[in-house]
Amino acid sequence: MYSIELKRQSEIPIKRQIYQALKDRILDGSLKAGEFLPSTRELAEQINVSRHTVCEAYDMLITEGFVLSRQGAPTRVAEGLRIDRPPGGFQDTREKSKTRYRVDFRTGWPDLRHVPRYLLQQMAHKAFEEMPLERFGYVSPQGALELRAEISSWLFRSKGLDVDAGDIFITSGATHALHIIANLISGRGNKIAIEDPCNSGILQTFLNAGCEAEPIPVDEKGIRVECLDGVSVSAVYTTPSHQFPLGPILPAVRRAELIRHARENDIYLIEDDYDSEFRYAGEPVAPLYSMDPRRVVYVGTFSKVLFPAIRIGYVILPEELQPKWRELRMHTDVQNPPFEQAMLAEFLRTRKFDRHLRRMRKLYGERRTALLGAMEEAFGDGWRACGDAAGLHLTVEFKSMRFDEAFIKKCGENGVRIASVERHAIRKGRHSNKLLLGFGHLEPVEIREGVSILRSVIQKHNLDGVKRYDCDRQLQSDPL
Amino acid sequence: MYSIELKRQSEIPIKRQIYQALKDRILDGSLKAGEFLPSTRELAEQINVSRHTVCEAYDMLITEGFVLSRQGAPTRVAEGLRIDRPPGGFQDTREKSKTRYRVDFRTGWPDLRHVPRYLLQQMAHKAFEEMPLERFGYVSPQGALELRAEISSWLFRSKGLDVDAGDIFITSGATHALHIIANLISGRGNKIAIEDPCNSGILQTFLNAGCEAEPIPVDEKGIRVECLDGVSVSAVYTTPSHQFPLGPILPAVRRAELIRHARENDIYLIEDDYDSEFRYAGEPVAPLYSMDPRRVVYVGTFSKVLFPAIRIGYVILPEELQPKWRELRMHTDVQNPPFEQAMLAEFLRTRKFDRHLRRMRKLYGERRTALLGAMEEAFGDGWRACGDAAGLHLTVEFKSMRFDEAFIKKCGENGVRIASVERHAIRKGRHSNKLLLGFGHLEPVEIREGVSILRSVIQKHNLDGVKRYDCDRQLQSDPL
Repeated sequence: MYSIELKRQSEIPIKRQIYQALKDRILDGSLKAGEFLPSTRELAEQINVSRHTVCEAYDMLITEGFVLSRQGAPTRVAEGLRIDRPPGGFQDTREKSKTRYRVDFRTGWPDLRHVPRYLLQQMAHKAFEEMPLERFGYVSPQGALELRAEISSWLFRSKGLDVDAGDIFITSGATHALHIIANLISGRGNKIAIEDPCNSGILQTFLNAGCEAEPIPVDEKGIRVECLDGVSVSAVYTTPSHQFPLGPILPAVRRAELIRHARENDIYLIEDDYDSEFRYAGEPVAPLYSMDPRRVVYVGTFSKVLFPAIRIGYVILPEELQPKWRELRMHTDVQNPPFEQAMLAEFLRTRKFDRHLRRMRKLYGERRTALLGAMEEAFGDGWRACGDAAGLHLTVEFKSMRFDEAFIKKCGENGVRIASVERHAIRKGRHSNKLLLGFGHLEPVEIREGVSILRSVIQKHNLDGVKRYDCDRQLQSDPL
Repeated sequence: MYSIELKRQSEIPIKRQIYQALKDRILDGSLKAGEFLPSTRELAEQINVSRHTVCEAYDMLITEGFVLSRQGAPTRVAEGLRIDRPPGGFQDTREKSKTRYRVDFRTGWPDLRHVPRYLLQQMAHKAFEEMPLERFGYVSPQGALELRAEISSWLFRSKGLDVDAGDIFITSGATHALHIIANLISGRGNKIAIEDPCNSGILQTFLNAGCEAEPIPVDEKGIRVECLDGVSVSAVYTTPSHQFPLGPILPAVRRAELIRHARENDIYLIEDDYDSEFRYAGEPVAPLYSMDPRRVVYVGTFSKVLFPAIRIGYVILPEELQPKWRELRMHTDVQNPPFEQAMLAEFLRTRKFDRHLRRMRKLYGERRTALLGAMEEAFGDGWRACGDAAGLHLTVEFKSMRFDEAFIKKCGENGVRIASVERHAIRKGRHSNKLLLGFGHLEPVEIREGVSILRSVIQKHNLDGVKRYDCDRQLQSDPL
């Protein structure tokens, strides 16, 4: 009568298989409310298991209230348990695997092939070994002190920034920092002024956090500070060291204007310093933060200088924001895990980090040169590089060209992933003649291949509104 | 004339020290707009450094727009740069160190002294060594597949839960999971029904995410499902396997009611299974999720079964919520770091995790017994234990007692940290006779000391509204 199919080899204990089988029948109604279950002895014999096993299964059903048992009386099904099985089955909804490109000019990717993984592995090992016991518990939403101290001293020796470790807050990367900042600074629905164009992912982070974005145009010098006048916002998001995606360094005059504006309007400046460690022409640019630590929230990350998966970034916070930050972080994700923090602290302490940075700066500089050369060769003077010689991507501008989605798609079909600046524009239509080429993760040979494919795509296709000969002409010799 | 104080031993390059000194004077106005800087040769002689060094400093000032230079003409200070120094200096605002207690009955702490750290260290080392290169880049907001697969098979063998790895999403712990769920399920300002009492930290997580909390009372069986009728919410937060803090296992009848309610009202059930791995009386309780994977968002964590700092939890998501989840996670903190994930996957794969769990369950069971014994000895039958024999804390109820803040404070002064259930109540006044004792991290001797201190505090102090003799009487023999 009770044909329960038992999988004797299964990792699921027999008692749980019995429990599951009976529970299923109770829920789908094939065992009705009030119905008696067979005695444990009966069932044990029927399905050929020990009575003890059946008793354990019954105990589970009793504990969870599926069946009721009273001394002496037989065990019976409880009332009101029937619910229909959920309709349909389950599909595996794993993420689709990404398309592979022959050359992928995606931006913001360091070269993973140059991660000093064995060095880091040793440091991780040491860190784990020497980890004090209490670090395995809840420690601090601010992050490991020794890491904050090392970051502080690195900021000092690399950017001349004098920051107390107590003002540094570790995060799980820059996106995470901006997510918390959005909750920290803007009350729900509050407006934040954002450079336009700006990184589309970061814009989304602000929007998801309930912010409204007020786009502030960027020109060849950076954010147009005068456009902030009369705009009521709670903060300004800016990338003064290397504007993304256009690349200029915000001049001192505008920095001073920004600081004055922030003071007069009692708002904060969110300085995203995402890749200024890689400057090829000269010294790293001094952060806006140094001009007024009371007004600027500085955001730094190790995703580009080390590797993205390390998930460690940091913010330097004005004092008055610090208590609220701790409260928010505590109820967002509590803290970073301790091992990466200890590993990174050791990497900084031993100055091997500085050496790694110099090596990578040299490498990326060479790749940037290779990219400029390939562009020169492919497009003569029909294009120009925008912004400062820094970072892991190059923004290029073509005269009288329009790079629309169809063009980007066409590039993809030809094996090249490339992004238009337009994709990162909040107000569309102003930057359709610009492309973004991330080069940090590409070998010179890959770079040259990518550029030549790009050239062929540009040549093969009349772009909307630009006749073939226009295109060709400017490709030959149009002066900008 | 230009007395620039140079620290020759400093880690800051001389050129940056010069740059900094000049920049400071420009910003504070002691170098005025239009004023000429000395020639590089002059300055080099005055401060006794190489001319090249001065040139580099000037280049930095030019790049950032603090000074202007034109061929032939002397370098001069740019316009409009003066800003007053920010008022006041900086204090170190490091977090105050926590008070140390002789006995700390805080809840939710596993015993860190039993973390299998050397085992884990080996696995972390192996994980790091074998980590594929692409794992150092941005991988997936869903989490490492091998970890999700191992969690899936562990849920199968330990709880009989049949979940596809594609439905499992890794998080940085349960708080992080609930933070994203709050953004996922509730539109801003939307209402979520929350068990009352419930963990006060989790309540705060929902509130910070912009949710409104609708408290649903809990009785000795768990959440009172009938109280949901007529309440319009987007989700119900519940802890059916071991209600926090009262401890009951939600009976099957109420589970079925919950599922029906969720289906009829087209809402989700958020099942927080924070510590049901530790059941001392019998088998782990089957998750509510198994009753309807379309309606239940299951939240699990490794903070208690391994250690809090690992920052790994997971959610099992209904299919229709998965795309939105990926988008949200991507713009919240992108993903978990890869090393802890790989380490944990290996720990699960080798089944050493199961062994660790069994060991800890035995250990915690003994400590719970020690706590019950100590309470018995100290308070006779003037108290009773609430809820199921599970988890890392014990909730105790005293008859005709009121544990207010003053009492908790007094315990602290006597060296014992303890929490009242009232602290976790949304609607106050219903649970003031209950205390929470976290015991997982305490040795039996610590437990006994803590209880005896608790007893002396209770005896020494007339509590509001309870006369001394009442107190004593019930301490001797009041039957509940």
